[in-house]
Amino acid sequence: MNITKEERDAVYKTIYNRRDTRGEFLSDSIDDEVIARLLDAAHHAPSVGFMQPWDFIVVKNNKVKQQIKDGFEVAHNEAKEMFEGDRQEVYKTLKLEGITEAPIGICITCDRSRTGDVVIGRTANLEMDLYSSVCAVQTLWLAARAENLGVGWVSIIHHEALKEALNIPEHIVPVAYLCIGKVSHFHEKPELEKAGWQDRMPLEELVHYDGWKN
Amino acid sequence: MNITKEERDAVYKTIYNRRDTRGEFLSDSIDDEVIARLLDAAHHAPSVGFMQPWDFIVVKNNKVKQQIKDGFEVAHNEAKEMFEGDRQEVYKTLKLEGITEAPIGICITCDRSRTGDVVIGRTANLEMDLYSSVCAVQTLWLAARAENLGVGWVSIIHHEALKEALNIPEHIVPVAYLCIGKVSHFHEKPELEKAGWQDRMPLEELVHYDGWKN
Repeated sequence: MNITKEERDAVYKTIYNRRDTRGEFLSDSIDDEVIARLLDAAHHAPSVGFMQPWDFIVVKNNKVKQQIKDGFEVAHNEAKEMFEGDRQEVYKTLKLEGITEAPIGICITCDRSRTGDVVIGRTANLEMDLYSSVCAVQTLWLAARAENLGVGWVSIIHHEALKEALNIPEHIVPVAYLCIGKVSHFHEKPELEKAGWQDRMPLEELVHYDGWKN
Repeated sequence: MNITKEERDAVYKTIYNRRDTRGEFLSDSIDDEVIARLLDAAHHAPSVGFMQPWDFIVVKNNKVKQQIKDGFEVAHNEAKEMFEGDRQEVYKTLKLEGITEAPIGICITCDRSRTGDVVIGRTANLEMDLYSSVCAVQTLWLAARAENLGVGWVSIIHHEALKEALNIPEHIVPVAYLCIGKVSHFHEKPELEKAGWQDRMPLEELVHYDGWKN
């Protein structure tokens, strides 16, 4: 199956215009068929040994969202204490999630025991199943951007809080909680870059040839 | 920035036609500007706290490739012993990498200390930096597919072997070694599905609403 130049450019356009959305969610609902497309795309991410270790918990219920928001607040308050001086002041001003504003949440998990103990490609690197679920996250994120939907990854929450709010079994690992929805706009640049928190690194400093060079 | 329906469909086409390539690499070289596009796309993956924890080691040298291949063989021989009976016989027949055939290898790593000890969004979940590097892997993979290039993730190799072959510093974690090149063809389905090793799971079994349901 050949991908044309125009199709290639559409993929790059989507990659470059993807953002982590926190403050720009609109309350408009998302059609179920759009959600179905996102989930099916994520289900076509690569997985080690074709393990497909992911599950998807779609959250629309406001009470459940509030419980996740409460879990965020706990971890966020802990985090505030970890930054010092000016960084702490800036940290406190940042909007870091849109859990209750986004019409949809999707939790992507990893079932580490799916398909048994021995999995092709995971024999030397046990973390490969978690990495597969992360590939599903990024695939869903790009598909959502292609649907002009914003996605925000809420990582400031403890696994236990997510598991309790979503009734996730003990042996399942939460990998990501994503807020998804239509947005007022997409930022031109990542917000932390815009806020002067962190610059984009020059790519040439990150590329090495045939071995690590310092 | 609006993504049109045609552009959206190009993204889905790329997602659905992405494969893990092992046996179909051609020896044709890849233009440096194509490699530069892939790396720049990967550098625009999401990262926790805009940490950009990745480095990219581009491998063209045959001696280095051979050293990585040797590392694969060690881990592959260990893996063979982990499968039993018929599964072991099938495992032995599978082509699981194209390290020396692919014109390019790219190792994507994670510098866990980049931007300091305390990182926004990584306070409750320390693995978020590794997950960011995985997002770079999947972004590069989709960009490569959009360039009609095959990518194969070699996970059957110990970190130590990769670090030694590529002179990777002690504190840097190898996340993925990717083989990249033009291909004779892309398989219509994942090879492990085609080989009857593992079926694709029905998506509806993997989707839950407002909480995990069994």
